[in-house]
Amino acid sequence: MFDLVTLGEAMIRLAAPHGESLESATNLEMRSAGAEANVAVVLARMGYRTSWISRLPDDPLGRRIAGDLRRHGVDTSAVAWAAGGRTGLYFLEQAPPPRGVTVYYDRGGSAFSALDPDRIDWAPVRQSRWAHTTGITPALGEACARAAVRFLAEARAAGVPTSLDVNHRRKLWDAKRARATLEPLLEGINVVIAAQEDAREVFDLQGSPPDLAERLRERVRAGAAVVTAGSEGAYLADDDAVYGEPAIPGVEVDPIGRGDAFAAGLIWGALEGDLCAGLRYGVALASLSQTFWGDVPWVTRQEVLGLLTSRSAKPER
Amino acid sequence: MFDLVTLGEAMIRLAAPHGESLESATNLEMRSAGAEANVAVVLARMGYRTSWISRLPDDPLGRRIAGDLRRHGVDTSAVAWAAGGRTGLYFLEQAPPPRGVTVYYDRGGSAFSALDPDRIDWAPVRQSRWAHTTGITPALGEACARAAVRFLAEARAAGVPTSLDVNHRRKLWDAKRARATLEPLLEGINVVIAAQEDAREVFDLQGSPPDLAERLRERVRAGAAVVTAGSEGAYLADDDAVYGEPAIPGVEVDPIGRGDAFAAGLIWGALEGDLCAGLRYGVALASLSQTFWGDVPWVTRQEVLGLLTSRSAKPER
Amino acid sequence: MFDLVTLGEAMIRLAAPHGESLESATNLEMRSAGAEANVAVVLARMGYRTSWISRLPDDPLGRRIAGDLRRHGVDTSAVAWAAGGRTGLYFLEQAPPPRGVTVYYDRGGSAFSALDPDRIDWAPVRQSRWAHTTGITPALGEACARAAVRFLAEARAAGVPTSLDVNHRRKLWDAKRARATLEPLLEGINVVIAAQEDAREVFDLQGSPPDLAERLRERVRAGAAVVTAGSEGAYLADDDAVYGEPAIPGVEVDPIGRGDAFAAGLIWGALEGDLCAGLRYGVALASLSQTFWGDVPWVTRQEVLGLLTSRSAKPER
Amino acid sequence: MFDLVTLGEAMIRLAAPHGESLESATNLEMRSAGAEANVAVVLARMGYRTSWISRLPDDPLGRRIAGDLRRHGVDTSAVAWAAGGRTGLYFLEQAPPPRGVTVYYDRGGSAFSALDPDRIDWAPVRQSRWAHTTGITPALGEACARAAVRFLAEARAAGVPTSLDVNHRRKLWDAKRARATLEPLLEGINVVIAAQEDAREVFDLQGSPPDLAERLRERVRAGAAVVTAGSEGAYLADDDAVYGEPAIPGVEVDPIGRGDAFAAGLIWGALEGDLCAGLRYGVALASLSQTFWGDVPWVTRQEVLGLLTSRSAKPER
Amino acid sequence: MFDLVTLGEAMIRLAAPHGESLESATNLEMRSAGAEANVAVVLARMGYRTSWISRLPDDPLGRRIAGDLRRHGVDTSAVAWAAGGRTGLYFLEQAPPPRGVTVYYDRGGSAFSALDPDRIDWAPVRQSRWAHTTGITPALGEACARAAVRFLAEARAAGVPTSLDVNHRRKLWDAKRARATLEPLLEGINVVIAAQEDAREVFDLQGSPPDLAERLRERVRAGAAVVTAGSEGAYLADDDAVYGEPAIPGVEVDPIGRGDAFAAGLIWGALEGDLCAGLRYGVALASLSQTFWGDVPWVTRQEVLGLLTSRSAKPER
Amino acid sequence: MFDLVTLGEAMIRLAAPHGESLESATNLEMRSAGAEANVAVVLARMGYRTSWISRLPDDPLGRRIAGDLRRHGVDTSAVAWAAGGRTGLYFLEQAPPPRGVTVYYDRGGSAFSALDPDRIDWAPVRQSRWAHTTGITPALGEACARAAVRFLAEARAAGVPTSLDVNHRRKLWDAKRARATLEPLLEGINVVIAAQEDAREVFDLQGSPPDLAERLRERVRAGAAVVTAGSEGAYLADDDAVYGEPAIPGVEVDPIGRGDAFAAGLIWGALEGDLCAGLRYGVALASLSQTFWGDVPWVTRQEVLGLLTSRSAKPER
Repeated sequence: MFDLVTLGEAMIRLAAPHGESLESATNLEMRSAGAEANVAVVLARMGYRTSWISRLPDDPLGRRIAGDLRRHGVDTSAVAWAAGGRTGLYFLEQAPPPRGVTVYYDRGGSAFSALDPDRIDWAPVRQSRWAHTTGITPALGEACARAAVRFLAEARAAGVPTSLDVNHRRKLWDAKRARATLEPLLEGINVVIAAQEDAREVFDLQGSPPDLAERLRERVRAGAAVVTAGSEGAYLADDDAVYGEPAIPGVEVDPIGRGDAFAAGLIWGALEGDLCAGLRYGVALASLSQTFWGDVPWVTRQEVLGLLTSRSAKPER
Repeated sequence: MFDLVTLGEAMIRLAAPHGESLESATNLEMRSAGAEANVAVVLARMGYRTSWISRLPDDPLGRRIAGDLRRHGVDTSAVAWAAGGRTGLYFLEQAPPPRGVTVYYDRGGSAFSALDPDRIDWAPVRQSRWAHTTGITPALGEACARAAVRFLAEARAAGVPTSLDVNHRRKLWDAKRARATLEPLLEGINVVIAAQEDAREVFDLQGSPPDLAERLRERVRAGAAVVTAGSEGAYLADDDAVYGEPAIPGVEVDPIGRGDAFAAGLIWGALEGDLCAGLRYGVALASLSQTFWGDVPWVTRQEVLGLLTSRSAKPER
Repeated sequence: MFDLVTLGEAMIRLAAPHGESLESATNLEMRSAGAEANVAVVLARMGYRTSWISRLPDDPLGRRIAGDLRRHGVDTSAVAWAAGGRTGLYFLEQAPPPRGVTVYYDRGGSAFSALDPDRIDWAPVRQSRWAHTTGITPALGEACARAAVRFLAEARAAGVPTSLDVNHRRKLWDAKRARATLEPLLEGINVVIAAQEDAREVFDLQGSPPDLAERLRERVRAGAAVVTAGSEGAYLADDDAVYGEPAIPGVEVDPIGRGDAFAAGLIWGALEGDLCAGLRYGVALASLSQTFWGDVPWVTRQEVLGLLTSRSAKPER
Repeated sequence: MFDLVTLGEAMIRLAAPHGESLESATNLEMRSAGAEANVAVVLARMGYRTSWISRLPDDPLGRRIAGDLRRHGVDTSAVAWAAGGRTGLYFLEQAPPPRGVTVYYDRGGSAFSALDPDRIDWAPVRQSRWAHTTGITPALGEACARAAVRFLAEARAAGVPTSLDVNHRRKLWDAKRARATLEPLLEGINVVIAAQEDAREVFDLQGSPPDLAERLRERVRAGAAVVTAGSEGAYLADDDAVYGEPAIPGVEVDPIGRGDAFAAGLIWGALEGDLCAGLRYGVALASLSQTFWGDVPWVTRQEVLGLLTSRSAKPER
Repeated sequence: MFDLVTLGEAMIRLAAPHGESLESATNLEMRSAGAEANVAVVLARMGYRTSWISRLPDDPLGRRIAGDLRRHGVDTSAVAWAAGGRTGLYFLEQAPPPRGVTVYYDRGGSAFSALDPDRIDWAPVRQSRWAHTTGITPALGEACARAAVRFLAEARAAGVPTSLDVNHRRKLWDAKRARATLEPLLEGINVVIAAQEDAREVFDLQGSPPDLAERLRERVRAGAAVVTAGSEGAYLADDDAVYGEPAIPGVEVDPIGRGDAFAAGLIWGALEGDLCAGLRYGVALASLSQTFWGDVPWVTRQEVLGLLTSRSAKPER
Repeated sequence: MFDLVTLGEAMIRLAAPHGESLESATNLEMRSAGAEANVAVVLARMGYRTSWISRLPDDPLGRRIAGDLRRHGVDTSAVAWAAGGRTGLYFLEQAPPPRGVTVYYDRGGSAFSALDPDRIDWAPVRQSRWAHTTGITPALGEACARAAVRFLAEARAAGVPTSLDVNHRRKLWDAKRARATLEPLLEGINVVIAAQEDAREVFDLQGSPPDLAERLRERVRAGAAVVTAGSEGAYLADDDAVYGEPAIPGVEVDPIGRGDAFAAGLIWGALEGDLCAGLRYGVALASLSQTFWGDVPWVTRQEVLGLLTSRSAKPER
């Protein structure tokens, strides 16, 4: 029995040191990363039982990814191990303005992209209290798109509520294809999450972030829609109303994974039966996440709750 | 259901870089380490279900240790989390001859040393196919000694076979006290393991390594006794005979944990019902272990079996 | 003959790299640190003869600390070397908001905490022009509290002026116990220093920083009281008036030790017979200190004076 | 045939890590650097054929410098290799306010400072579309001053347009000597570049940055004069008018080389026959340059043009 | 005009630190590497004009590789820049016995593997004094095999002598396929080089190393054949005789690239018209190469000649 | 009052990481080093009061050197601080055979080389129990040669016994000049030390190491002569006899400073009045020294005595 099951690819992330480029770096920092894996990690850290469904090659990099997830407490027994194939990679340069973050994907031909939905063990979906995936999964190819459909269908059949984070990746597909694939997928989903620029670009919506939340919910016929708006905070639209939660200011050390941390917070609230609490957990986790190198915040449930209580962090000695 | 359960303390290991001392180093490398934890890690890497019983403070260093074990696949749900207490540490300098390895323990007052055997959940012992601990555990204080007694008693009561690695630590107690504590403990154990110098010093035995194995078995009334003799290999004495297995030559990068890797190999054999195979697994794992920084060999079952098949390692490209 | 003698514990400081936590770090940066040792270091760097009274184990970490102080010119011949005991440690995570700095002490059972005031050679106190300690020392246990009393008594008996930095450590004791111990200690001290939050919490004072300075002086019957107020600057109250000095803006690389640098500046002024100059030295040293990793600013007297002259730092090539 | 030829010294740059000083650092980061070499590197990265005239010792550090330039595409066949002599060095501490950047030159007696203008092969100057040097070169001694004169004379004789970046270095000479040497040198130069403080200090000019540009042009009888004013941007005065270009805001990781990147941008414009475009390239390259460790921006022509188009940098994934 | 032109793929090499595995490493060291590129680098370092024909994606990793070659002096103007495609990678673990070196290729789908021989500019082949490639190139796919054929044909048509290093890669193809492809390719080649195990496995030859050299020459109808035999040295068979050269003992820091360094030495001899001298250069370069991390020896011609003169290396101060 | 005073230059040592060259390294490790400073450091570590006479620039690198010596306990109050001048440097590549260690000096024009013997405070020489310098000091120029003469003269005048380590540096002067300068200097010295190759090359002596010791003593009219012969050990010739001490085998991590460690051991014996004990201390310190990065062994007196007792180093836990 799990509290959360997620489906998605995880990659090896290879980052140039701060101040260097991939042309100049002599060492790359290696970590594991992937939107749905990140969500499973964060909720495992919060004390929930989480399972991650994926496919990895049975080689050192594949084992590395599974180990990195287990370290945080994620159950990896639903990972399908491929005899061949490669591990998806992404190369990363982080820089302050005017450069910003640049991601170079090298994930084509990965073991995950070649998964066969009929050979995945979907049992954990049926044994879970919540199921989550993102718009990245169907963007990875036809097999992955079918896996996402199957994942959500298995959940619905078992009465397991679902969420999907749109997470539009311009380097993987364009907005038109994303919309054509995601719209049918989102129908009937319990919670859909989108950054405001994705809501605009993929679903052709307009308006302020709270408006976007409301229109997104209608457009995709989701139970609830959440739109994130960076430093402006996040907005949740459900049957009754639109709720807003301001962002918690912080200093950005590494922005990657901030959205996944937010999504994890939202699901945390959903597991407690309170999506508004989820908004608060989300903004707290997002603000904490950006202060860590790598995609995931190495925090405890107590630290998140502490931040929400105090909204301040004084050195204590 | 587990294949192996172990009881013991794990520490944070802080090592000076090669060529430096603790006086000169500006950075210390941080890992998790502990004899019984190492054994659980190695068998998890070999594909077995392993559980580790211990006690850790609920702070970053305690969580770090549990995460490091989970990463390799060890089940940590039997760890007791202490509200207070500290994490045991050891500082390490590694140097070639004439200096060698120097370990500085700073483990007094650890959360493990204050464990209460009556508040430990011993269920995993009864649900396991093998139970293992070492002579370090009873050396850590009276509470730990009682825990070791209880651990072995629980195993015997449930018909779970047991092993104990003598692992004499001169910095924790002297040979006389070690013997007084260990002898009663060892009686009835299925497999006892000792380095030849420990067999001599703690149990006052004499003779060549195979002789020592035979006499150790008699002395402690164990089912089988194994004596390791460094580059000479290892010897197993059971009811019938003494079996020897030569060491597999290799280059020492970090000797710490080599004995634990050997013990893990022996238990692997035991789980397959073939202690002689265990000797072979043990010498292979010991030889591989020393080529890795840290206490554990990051190898797969396939790599161990490959080494035993070929006993050679050619670069293949 | 010394210009300054200080009494206190120094620890090994083990810090996670920026962007990492103690759970995720693979290397910890190692330095020496301790409030009173830091003050002695800074004044030695300013060209004064300083001595540090303490107790350390005669092992690599103890020797490391003494060497780190000598490097800056501090005389360590008054250190008592313990045959056993451990070196106090602190683990450190530094992060920007909303996380901030987190210190994990592991100093229980240190050689310093077990010092015997009767076996310390107090001669350097009597041969010094100034004596300084902090509220941390009596917080470390009964023996340390007695040592602090003795240290101040030796100074007074020899006519050596004294200062004490309140330095309240919530992780060591609560405000009530701190007050009960510190109040009698502070009576008759020449200069008492407190952060504004400590003035409020420990001595139950109220008002603006300059008010706090005035009331603190009265409360503890010190010759002068100094209250530091972060970016607002520092305030000195003596018989005649309250003097304020604005902080010098700067960017925080590592805030630890900023208060000790300020205290050193104040004593520098005192040694020149001008506490108001000391306020200026203090804000300059505090501003410089935060730009260095570690507890102490690696600056020269000339650089401090240069900053006070120009209050600007232009690259010159 | 080259697009650009530059004359100047390059040094090995040895930088303390961020947060450390040269007194505390245990490792120094090593790179190659030199104002005229940096300009050649940036233009090579922009796709131009560039040649660098210099003199280096035939030892590992000399070879290192030549290799570092070749890596970016600079032609180093005009480097004169000295049998003896040393490589110029500079030691560097970077710190945020109130400390700032400190450069310690150790370039006396370098192979470059002992060059003989008559033994340099000046052919590349005559085969180039543009020739550039800086005020640092004549500051390095009498031989270097003669080389600068010869370099500019060769260019003029061949009808190759020239530029000179004043780059006043207070640690090498004072303003009076700089002016006496540079004024005759600058006469007839096509483009002269000066930071506003250099325009004031060396040429005793007054007024706002655009005024300074106009007056500098008159004073040195250059075809055009450019004055840079940090965050205020840069101003170009030619026969007709004064043109201004605002700076592009960014975060400073390492300010060294920002001026060289600007000069490279200006020459890029000049090579395209449009100095106003050069102002834009210059502010873009300067803003990008400061986000990289080391003296040069590891960017492509496309990234510079992209910044000018968007003046924004969003993470794209 | 070039002294040497080579054809082949270069990859980004990502190596785990010594003592770590790819599962445990947190940083990977990044370098450029590729058999034919290595040969061009070594001969450029020896003072020869070398050109490298290849295909790279126009992205940071592709530019990195070209820059790394230029750094040593290799001309990269014959590189074809691909708008898409990926850069080939290889992951590396180095360990002492019993583990040894493990290479994990991730080079499928690289820009090089998709090269179109008709769109390569073969002019440098015709303008060169020697042309070299290896058996790796045709192993990378049908297009690469055609490119290798074309490369050798262009050379022959222009009267440029050729060499090929067999370099059998078991992870890319099996011996049977290698032989079927290589045999026709080798016919008429001037110098063929093979490790003794490749001579045995690919060409099914038998005998001692000198025998293998003789038989290899006959089998492939090459002008000369060289067989390398590790610590036994190398053997050259030409029309007249078989010549042997003992290896120069050394300590292995990184064995990768040793064979390429040997091949470069052989070609150096060939360019001097003395293949026997080439044997000596080869064993010297191979012995030096293994003492450097990475695929290439950072030595000078003088250092190689010095080693051959003294065959000893005493510290000189 | 000191036990030992030494005279000599110390430099900043900048070393390429193992496996890299100065051409390829991106970071250089920074330490302080100098033959006579090393001797003072080792004897300070052994518990003796040592003083070091030298001249340093008052800049970060100069202060760094003094701090590095103080760290070990050396008194630096006799250092003369120069307003200008540079700090001598040496660049270092360490490699196994066939490359070995390469030192690149960059010490010309150092503050030390410009010292004025009349402005040095020679008082510490007269207040010391032993005075030591090396043949490097007079090799650094005329002023340094006069300083060495003066140093030895001051010692003799005050009845302080002296030693000189020949330490021939081929990169500083040739054997003929060394001999002309050193022979008069050595006359009347109490202990002269020479490596066997220096005894042969500089003093034109012949024979086995013990023969060389005897002849060296005669040649320079020293009280005693010691000749070191690497792995063969060391030989001491005095009035009565020649004594030999075998080397203690060990693994070389960094050979630099081994000779200085030996000299320190010899002086240790001299201070105890037993030069034969000094031979033993010397071989122990030399063997330990090579296991540390950097020029000095970070050991304690107890560890040296322990090695001499056991001549074995077993890990003890």
